[in-house]
Amino acid sequence: MAPKGLDYELLNENVKKVQYAVRGELYLRASELQKEGKKIIFTNVGNPHALGQKPLTFPRQVVALCQAPFLLDDPNVGLMFPADAIARAKHYLSLTSGGLGAYSDSRGIPGVRKEVADFLLRRDGYPSDPELIFLTDGASKGVMQILSTIIRGPSDGILVPVPQYPLYSAAISLFGGTLVPYYLEETANWGLDVNDLRNAVSQAKSKGITVKAMVIINPGNPTGQCLSEANLSEILRFCYQEGLVLLGDEVYQQNIYQDERPFISSKKVLMDMGPPYSKEVQLVSFHTVSKGYWGECGQRGGYFEMTNIPPKTVDEIYKVASISLSPNVPAQIFMGLMVNPLKPGDISYEQFIRESKGVLESLRRRARIMTDGFNSCRNVVCNFTEGAMYSFPQIRLPPKAIEAAKSAGKVADVFYCLKLLEATGISTVPGSGFGQKEGVFHLRTTILPAEEDMPAIMESFKKFNDEFMEQYEDHKGYSRMSVAE
Amino acid sequence: MAPKGLDYELLNENVKKVQYAVRGELYLRASELQKEGKKIIFTNVGNPHALGQKPLTFPRQVVALCQAPFLLDDPNVGLMFPADAIARAKHYLSLTSGGLGAYSDSRGIPGVRKEVADFLLRRDGYPSDPELIFLTDGASKGVMQILSTIIRGPSDGILVPVPQYPLYSAAISLFGGTLVPYYLEETANWGLDVNDLRNAVSQAKSKGITVKAMVIINPGNPTGQCLSEANLSEILRFCYQEGLVLLGDEVYQQNIYQDERPFISSKKVLMDMGPPYSKEVQLVSFHTVSKGYWGECGQRGGYFEMTNIPPKTVDEIYKVASISLSPNVPAQIFMGLMVNPLKPGDISYEQFIRESKGVLESLRRRARIMTDGFNSCRNVVCNFTEGAMYSFPQIRLPPKAIEAAKSAGKVADVFYCLKLLEATGISTVPGSGFGQKEGVFHLRTTILPAEEDMPAIMESFKKFNDEFMEQYEDHKGYSRMSVAE
Repeated sequence: MAPKGLDYELLNENVKKVQYAVRGELYLRASELQKEGKKIIFTNVGNPHALGQKPLTFPRQVVALCQAPFLLDDPNVGLMFPADAIARAKHYLSLTSGGLGAYSDSRGIPGVRKEVADFLLRRDGYPSDPELIFLTDGASKGVMQILSTIIRGPSDGILVPVPQYPLYSAAISLFGGTLVPYYLEETANWGLDVNDLRNAVSQAKSKGITVKAMVIINPGNPTGQCLSEANLSEILRFCYQEGLVLLGDEVYQQNIYQDERPFISSKKVLMDMGPPYSKEVQLVSFHTVSKGYWGECGQRGGYFEMTNIPPKTVDEIYKVASISLSPNVPAQIFMGLMVNPLKPGDISYEQFIRESKGVLESLRRRARIMTDGFNSCRNVVCNFTEGAMYSFPQIRLPPKAIEAAKSAGKVADVFYCLKLLEATGISTVPGSGFGQKEGVFHLRTTILPAEEDMPAIMESFKKFNDEFMEQYEDHKGYSRMSVAE
Repeated sequence: MAPKGLDYELLNENVKKVQYAVRGELYLRASELQKEGKKIIFTNVGNPHALGQKPLTFPRQVVALCQAPFLLDDPNVGLMFPADAIARAKHYLSLTSGGLGAYSDSRGIPGVRKEVADFLLRRDGYPSDPELIFLTDGASKGVMQILSTIIRGPSDGILVPVPQYPLYSAAISLFGGTLVPYYLEETANWGLDVNDLRNAVSQAKSKGITVKAMVIINPGNPTGQCLSEANLSEILRFCYQEGLVLLGDEVYQQNIYQDERPFISSKKVLMDMGPPYSKEVQLVSFHTVSKGYWGECGQRGGYFEMTNIPPKTVDEIYKVASISLSPNVPAQIFMGLMVNPLKPGDISYEQFIRESKGVLESLRRRARIMTDGFNSCRNVVCNFTEGAMYSFPQIRLPPKAIEAAKSAGKVADVFYCLKLLEATGISTVPGSGFGQKEGVFHLRTTILPAEEDMPAIMESFKKFNDEFMEQYEDHKGYSRMSVAE
């Protein structure tokens, strides 16, 4: 019988090529084990509320009132909601045309985009145009829209850091483009060297690939580094010279754990550089309500801001956004609340600060516990998490382990992570899902398990790892030598 | 200077080709006029809450509690929320892993997918598998995901009704496929003839196009007809013979205004047909929380159900859904509430029925007022809206009007709709945005303006139309003859 429209052999080949390790083999196995009754610690995805982080109270009060606007007319409303939440809910409802149940403009509610622009002015010291800010169903959807606008086919290349968050490799496969890797240097705290960028672009050119855009993830995912101002301005100069769009994934900008490495936005650095750069370099920056001390992943809210993008292109992006009508409206309200937070003197201010500081300070402590924990393990080395939500230790696998993996038909780090999962219930993502140099192995874990559980988790990890190394290590000493190198 | 990555001339050509009339020239002009202070009646998009439809109280109570779960511990909660809303909120929170702020599985919350499956069993009388139901950010996103899975390039064709909802033409352009039109017959109440389908497919084949799928919109958008069981089974037999996936856009299944033309799902007809059809025909059906008496467009909630789709293909669809992590969780709760509504005896049942019946009965009256209104106008003929939310009158434009449009550089129906907008503030979508036969002109309007405003709107339309016809008509009588034909 002839194959039918959705038979596997007739599918879009780009769809088949997509790989997305964050919810790949490890996640599927973990889900199976959970069904069988095993306790699983899901650290495969940055999903803070799933690991017990509590939502901030004030924004949830505001959105609850926006969902149920009839409560605003209830004489008892003051018993359950503070006056500032009531006022804010009225404010956001007044910005919508029909409440949360009506489609907004496809770019998002104009009044909320204005609040984002005001936030960017405060953050960077430069004006921002609400017409160039589009709200999205999470940052990933925005990244995908921009990539699909750029990519025409396999001869269009996108520079992507390796290791990278696999959204980029997956979306580039899906849209049929070519990923052009540039390597982050682990021994230089995951820094990047502009000479490597130049090499990557010229190598791509020699293969007939036109590099059209460059992705940076700052703070890094999975690598956790914060890019310095000097590094950012080198990158922007490079984009200027090569005519590349810079895609600045800045979703972890609130997640900073080391005071001497603050977050600096690409937009600010670009504007500081002045002309011709500030007038010429095409930049799209992404942000979200899913990260920071908010962690409102399930709401799916994000935005992107476009700088130096021609109006005709903005029109095209608007047109394509219109096909799916509008980003979800509740998450647009969360975005407004995130960029326009409470101010000193507001009734709920103290509680808001207490809650948000509590989350951030605990994440900072957890980043430290985790890095130290990994570095105490045999054949494991790990840079400190300066920002974002992940730890990305290098696992120095002995040759016998690599062989055993091969016999089992697995990539070596997948083999290690599966064993870890079966032994401890800790569900991580193998480094091969993010890309790494040949013969070097990592895993990614979030720093999100509850702080009080952290010591036990690290102990359980250490026990597994050290036994694993004991089992596979040649006692004449591959790894000791390697560590001593 | 060399062009840069996001300069217009370097963009993905498929993006440039996309047309999306629902938010096209007419909508942009209407938005401008609104800014200038003119009162605009937006009937360009089925967005009920924007035109004053009130949300149903019970689901909003439940979702508000889910957003603010701390209210459940408030001793005053019973003053503001009925016990069944409290119980339902607890139920849905128990189905999530971390509340509304946590990503769900990329297919949606398993417990909600189970509720959808139970609904489908009750609706169709056949079991449905929750593993084959994926929740989405609105039905459009689901349609786009399936089309992008199917389409490999320009030689893959998708059969689409003309007139059609332009989501289909836009998405097919975006993914680089080919739209293969089949015409709905206006004089046969927008019915479809399977012989025309056969012709369309063989014509496409002769051009080297492989038709892989067929879209039906039932009830019709913009055309408002409900397909009969006999028609559906002919279509399914045709899909079986040709190996086509049937994409059943059934988002208006609750919007039925004529008792003798009920909604019948493609799934039920397929299962009723028995083998080989029920085992072989690939079917994907779409539904939403945006339509019906819910109208919760801004929440962006939908689902699709897959029937006879091979497991390997389902895995691919799951993998691609994973890239954007999860559909928004609040809308998943709305979907749960929609498919698992209150039952007689529940505290809030009477109110729920009163509200939902109120919406539907008013829509039914508005459908009648609008059809009758259009049919009372010079050179306008209009089929009755059996279902959905739109009226799609044919406007018989006199040759002089067509010439005047040509001189103004406009398609004739765009010219008419722009004049209508300027004169009355009524923002419609020209028929050319949906496709129509050569030389035949329509407009689409929703039936959503408030019932009390409807007589004045139709009067204002009639005044404009009849004056327009007076101005452009050759009094020797093109259109009278045409009407008399």
